[in-house]
Amino acid sequence: MAEDVIRQRVEAWTKAIRAKDLEGVMSFYAPEIVSFDIVPPLRYAGADNKRRAWQEAFAGYAGPITYEARDLNISAQGDLAFAHSLNHVNGRLASGHINDLWLRWTACFRRIAGVWLVVHDHVSVPADLEHGQAAVNLKPRAP
Amino acid sequence: MAEDVIRQRVEAWTKAIRAKDLEGVMSFYAPEIVSFDIVPPLRYAGADNKRRAWQEAFAGYAGPITYEARDLNISAQGDLAFAHSLNHVNGRLASGHINDLWLRWTACFRRIAGVWLVVHDHVSVPADLEHGQAAVNLKPRAP
Repeated sequence: MAEDVIRQRVEAWTKAIRAKDLEGVMSFYAPEIVSFDIVPPLRYAGADNKRRAWQEAFAGYAGPITYEARDLNISAQGDLAFAHSLNHVNGRLASGHINDLWLRWTACFRRIAGVWLVVHDHVSVPADLEHGQAAVNLKPRAP
Repeated sequence: MAEDVIRQRVEAWTKAIRAKDLEGVMSFYAPEIVSFDIVPPLRYAGADNKRRAWQEAFAGYAGPITYEARDLNISAQGDLAFAHSLNHVNGRLASGHINDLWLRWTACFRRIAGVWLVVHDHVSVPADLEHGQAAVNLKPRAP
């Protein structure tokens, strides 16, 4: 089933992130991806910009990265699919600070030449709009 | 085409937001929606919680709300669809503060009994993870 294939793709992608394997990570994305990423800008397009974002992310970590997708929910039909999960990232930054963060992750897929590729992703933490703060200390509770 | 129907649904939804028409807004969502919303928690599920979130949002504004979706991109196949846009919200809060914000908006739809309903949404601003800040002052540039 398409959902199973996509689940395996997500697992391979998280494994590539943990290995800081840039080519492995990039094989997940369509060339024309439109991304709403965790850090600014609001939006960027294209695999080159996605590659740059991952290069910067990997460079920011001094040692290993833990990255896991929890409660991964996938819907697929024909050549379209979408998925969402809560992703736990943990690692020591170059500054010494330990990043230990839960991200909301949404990915929209299109099957292109037989391969499920992410054409749109959205990664975030909630915001405290009144105080202009990013809510970086939240943990999952039952959905 | 399904994309046209969904575009009309999104336009009706933004119109309902501007009118603070809670029932109109709620007619956009599936009962089992899983939401990654702009404000905490990380995730919530169910139309009752979505209704509460909109009630609180509407109550926070002292006067009219402007809400518009820019660069709305829609993909649909069979009974599945996904959409993303940059949404501009503007209004005066009860505190007197003017909220003037660009949000990233992703919605995943399923056609249920002939009606396109949002089964998952994700709304956010980017984060400055190093300083724990929400990036609330960004404006769109070319994608």
